[in-house]
Amino acid sequence: MDHQRRLRALRKKMREQKLDSVLITHLPDVRYLCGFTGSNAALAVTQERAVLFTDGRYTAQAKLETTGARVVIAAKSALGEACSWIEKSGARRAFYDPQNTTVAALGLMREAVSRRRQQTFFQPLERPLTMDLRMVKDAEELLVMEKAALLGCHLFEAVLPHLQPGVPEIEVAATLEFFARSLGAEGMSFETIVASGKRSAFPHGRATEKRLPRRGFVTLDFGVILNGYCSDMTRTVYLGRPSKAEQDAYDAVLAAQEAAVSAVGPGIACGEVDEAARQVLRNAGLDQYFTHSTGHGVGIEIHELPRVAAKQDQVLMPGMVVTIEPGIYIEGKFGIRIEDMVAVTKSGARVLTPAPKAMIQL
Amino acid sequence: MDHQRRLRALRKKMREQKLDSVLITHLPDVRYLCGFTGSNAALAVTQERAVLFTDGRYTAQAKLETTGARVVIAAKSALGEACSWIEKSGARRAFYDPQNTTVAALGLMREAVSRRRQQTFFQPLERPLTMDLRMVKDAEELLVMEKAALLGCHLFEAVLPHLQPGVPEIEVAATLEFFARSLGAEGMSFETIVASGKRSAFPHGRATEKRLPRRGFVTLDFGVILNGYCSDMTRTVYLGRPSKAEQDAYDAVLAAQEAAVSAVGPGIACGEVDEAARQVLRNAGLDQYFTHSTGHGVGIEIHELPRVAAKQDQVLMPGMVVTIEPGIYIEGKFGIRIEDMVAVTKSGARVLTPAPKAMIQL
Repeated sequence: MDHQRRLRALRKKMREQKLDSVLITHLPDVRYLCGFTGSNAALAVTQERAVLFTDGRYTAQAKLETTGARVVIAAKSALGEACSWIEKSGARRAFYDPQNTTVAALGLMREAVSRRRQQTFFQPLERPLTMDLRMVKDAEELLVMEKAALLGCHLFEAVLPHLQPGVPEIEVAATLEFFARSLGAEGMSFETIVASGKRSAFPHGRATEKRLPRRGFVTLDFGVILNGYCSDMTRTVYLGRPSKAEQDAYDAVLAAQEAAVSAVGPGIACGEVDEAARQVLRNAGLDQYFTHSTGHGVGIEIHELPRVAAKQDQVLMPGMVVTIEPGIYIEGKFGIRIEDMVAVTKSGARVLTPAPKAMIQL
Repeated sequence: MDHQRRLRALRKKMREQKLDSVLITHLPDVRYLCGFTGSNAALAVTQERAVLFTDGRYTAQAKLETTGARVVIAAKSALGEACSWIEKSGARRAFYDPQNTTVAALGLMREAVSRRRQQTFFQPLERPLTMDLRMVKDAEELLVMEKAALLGCHLFEAVLPHLQPGVPEIEVAATLEFFARSLGAEGMSFETIVASGKRSAFPHGRATEKRLPRRGFVTLDFGVILNGYCSDMTRTVYLGRPSKAEQDAYDAVLAAQEAAVSAVGPGIACGEVDEAARQVLRNAGLDQYFTHSTGHGVGIEIHELPRVAAKQDQVLMPGMVVTIEPGIYIEGKFGIRIEDMVAVTKSGARVLTPAPKAMIQL
């Protein structure tokens, strides 16, 4: 990954917004900007220099992974030393991300600078600077994410024969995750959801010891991490023969999903994409069961910008990757969700999740 | 789990510390106090009432899981509605955990209450109230954690035959995680570490595509989540025949680990336990390679209180569960770490990780 380019892009934004220095402590941001993947890091960036502070556990790893920033192993506190370095660098102020800085951390940051500056030195960023950069993926990132999404599709196909009445949900998850690891995934991007029968009405029904029913929906929602990037997909299949009402509900969700996918394109507001899905379900009389937003950005983190939700005016740009995942949840009965990852292109959109979406009956 | 007892214990602490209300937003704390496991929650607690705020995705799940608190599905913001509920409850102030509240969240909290109160209504807790409760496990928790730790030991045994020269580290991790899932784990408590040969000198060397060497150390550090509780264990084995220096280093780490385990007991300060391990390595001339602390509390989260580190004066109490995991890391050569989970009892300590610790040569 071209960390140097990313640091240049960050510095350009810093100049535009007149920020003399930024303190980056959100680990996915640190990884994005300089490559370091350890669990304790503070990256200090000025126009001239960038220094990564971490601790003694990461001496070897930090040297190996980091590009574009000097590595300092902090004797006491990586965060504290980063702050005092910024002060000594001559910066008048240091900007931080209030979404990813705790009140306690801000207290430690203030303690690390000289007394007269404690109340004024640290300023919250108005927009999350690095997350804004991360929102638009570069060619290398798109390639990795495409691979991650494809791996997801392979896993879905591979796990289908294991979806048999009587098999515990947790065993389905175990099998899927084993395939994922065996095919090179670093891990799962979130807790695998296998929600069957009435449990499919739980949008976030992680796999339990419940056995798959002889008849009913099974929702699989899962993602892998490949080279540090997350995939995310959902398919809902049917064990046995669906009733007319179940088939109709499925078709409505699928139509909503496809309408939203079709709405994706450069210059389109996220709220319009959400509305495209919602309108189809409204026409089918099912919109009251669609209790979440249509999707979210995805990348190094499973949830990134932009939010694909009602009234969001963020405009889609080429290189953004979002999920499109409408669903309906009828308590005590069933639930259905269908989700693809979609990359915004110059001329429209490209679906990264080519697994079949027409109802699969097993 | 007895959530009612936990809420009572919280309210007792609130009375002692004269806190009229607390706002709990850290998800493991919410789970601990009322059982809800969703990803968006704010729990408002006064002496008389407790209300859990979440969103529409969790309507069914929240009802099913929550005990001791009324459930409210927030129309807009769970956090905002919790704050305005606390204000309306008549509380003069609301206490929050500054370690787990972002600067941005505090901003939203303030906006949710009436203007004249914005600067004074929310007060940071001096000690993390719920985390302090969670530090001492009850009998039910100890039972679950014992099971989780034992499952870890079974996995270690089961994966040993797969530790063969030429096998990729990531395949070892995949196999171990598959066994874990198959035996009922909800997931892994952190990214599985398989660090072989020179990579064993990375304390946090997650499994890569590197193949196990014909000769050298392999460090396995992993944990499962069982009924919401984490296990954590490390073993370092040797492929082939170790040199005298490698065997001596291993024996020193083992002696340090056992010295620290022996030091664990009620009334003992965490710093003393850390020192017990450090002293053994100092005598062996290896203490400069022991670059992290001796251990940490474990429970719903993989890292909890207390910290078992130098100079920590927190005193161990019956019911606490800590890891004891000294290690040495010699860059370019090798690393060794051995880790057990240890429960503090009334009379001393009980090791929850009965897997063998003498050097295993494969």
